[in-house]
Amino acid sequence: MTEVNRICIVGVGLIGGSFALALKKAGYDGHISGAGRNIENLEKAVELGVIDSYSADLSSAVVGCDLVLLAVPMGAMKPVLKVIKPALGNNTIITDAGSVKGSFVRDADETLDTLSRVVPGHPIAGTEKSGVEAAFATLYENRKVILTPLPETEIDATEAVRCLWEMAGAEVECLTPDHHDRVLAATSHLPHVVAFSIVDTLATLQESEEIFRYAAGGFHDFTRIASSDPVMWRDVCLTNREAVLSMMDKLMADLAQVRDQIEQTDADAIEKMFSRAKSARDSHIQWGRKQ
Amino acid sequence: MTEVNRICIVGVGLIGGSFALALKKAGYDGHISGAGRNIENLEKAVELGVIDSYSADLSSAVVGCDLVLLAVPMGAMKPVLKVIKPALGNNTIITDAGSVKGSFVRDADETLDTLSRVVPGHPIAGTEKSGVEAAFATLYENRKVILTPLPETEIDATEAVRCLWEMAGAEVECLTPDHHDRVLAATSHLPHVVAFSIVDTLATLQESEEIFRYAAGGFHDFTRIASSDPVMWRDVCLTNREAVLSMMDKLMADLAQVRDQIEQTDADAIEKMFSRAKSARDSHIQWGRKQ
Repeated sequence: MTEVNRICIVGVGLIGGSFALALKKAGYDGHISGAGRNIENLEKAVELGVIDSYSADLSSAVVGCDLVLLAVPMGAMKPVLKVIKPALGNNTIITDAGSVKGSFVRDADETLDTLSRVVPGHPIAGTEKSGVEAAFATLYENRKVILTPLPETEIDATEAVRCLWEMAGAEVECLTPDHHDRVLAATSHLPHVVAFSIVDTLATLQESEEIFRYAAGGFHDFTRIASSDPVMWRDVCLTNREAVLSMMDKLMADLAQVRDQIEQTDADAIEKMFSRAKSARDSHIQWGRKQ
Repeated sequence: MTEVNRICIVGVGLIGGSFALALKKAGYDGHISGAGRNIENLEKAVELGVIDSYSADLSSAVVGCDLVLLAVPMGAMKPVLKVIKPALGNNTIITDAGSVKGSFVRDADETLDTLSRVVPGHPIAGTEKSGVEAAFATLYENRKVILTPLPETEIDATEAVRCLWEMAGAEVECLTPDHHDRVLAATSHLPHVVAFSIVDTLATLQESEEIFRYAAGGFHDFTRIASSDPVMWRDVCLTNREAVLSMMDKLMADLAQVRDQIEQTDADAIEKMFSRAKSARDSHIQWGRKQ
């Protein structure tokens, strides 16, 4: 078993910080350092006991580390990989927590000499909050983490990453990067675009103040993800562009259809669609409760 | 002050049942009876202490009542009004809990001889559950109830309805029916159509089983309202057709725009829209917390 005694987390926010907290809670006794651009955030992360030390210099931060976790927006993956590359040891495992796997694989492929120690990963967890103050040790409990190891990835590297996520409380599964990106476009990326869009549509109406005033709990839940980080989600949409566009086209065609059914007072068709949706959601409520 | 000693609730589900429970909790000492088509549900409502008695015969149920609350789907309002009309006393107040006010006003106008005792109302509260088992006494606490009294409505009738809702814990406000319907099309009806539609879009994909398997908490919140009652929401869409269509058209145009921005990799435009949406939602989060 590959020993991981020194971990460096690049980007100590909700995702990276919660990973560190979960490992500490589980009794991980190695050293966890942090790196990133925001010194104030890193200082706070040490203060809060999330990480043991930090370095604002990315390159020196990863020296001597057994594993580096990149928990930065998708658009920052490649620049970070470029900077840390010369400082990586031969056996240093590189993993990430990005929402799009195809793009991370491309970034790694274009930057590193080999993908043998690269284990792309995606914890399917998070809240609409960001920053290290939002991190908590139980974020990953009973959540899924998808790893998308490549043909070149060495098995011990994948197993080491799996082992850490399981220690953090997660259930680990493997998919191919493409498959991951198609599935997540449907359940995560599309809903985020729609939530942002609907809030923006209402916010730009003349009577928006009043509209929000009369909004209730259902609307609050429905739009919660519109409070997510705009830069992160911009990057997700652009790096998973094709899958996101394909899902948007499907939804827009379906919306146009129900729009016409409403215009034509086609009660049966509307009720049929609503019922199908309700029963699909109700039958999957198990995962909802569990997660 | 008009005394309301006998209340009849037609449709003892989540909305009607919670109204009764809230009044009882607040110490209301009048008689609350229930009526409806589903005897089993009415028996359960008595068993659970939600109502004091019931009648399966609508017409005899309202005899001698000071106030009748119609808590049935929009499509059932008119048939119910027709049946109970001959049994209504001259001073019996008629109010409802429907999500669309213009249509209830039309139904009442076409059925009753006068609107002087009609106080259209809409509690902006609810969950995705339905049936009397889902009812609870605190559903209306700190929620808004919108009344849309008509020029013909007698002030004592409006005040009696206001008084009951306030006793149930709600904050009562008045709007015109049209104004109510436009605002609710935006914050409630549109989100429901979109939530049903997105779940249906995903459910009809080939890999739907898997898609739902990897859905997380964000998706669960986003689609919660898609577990709502299909018949009720079909009726809402059809009875508030014009306002719903107008909101759908606005949203679909905005979705088409962000779709094109994603296709053209227009990072600035996407980030700008996402940021605008996030700040709109964050600045209205107060109501979300409160409600």
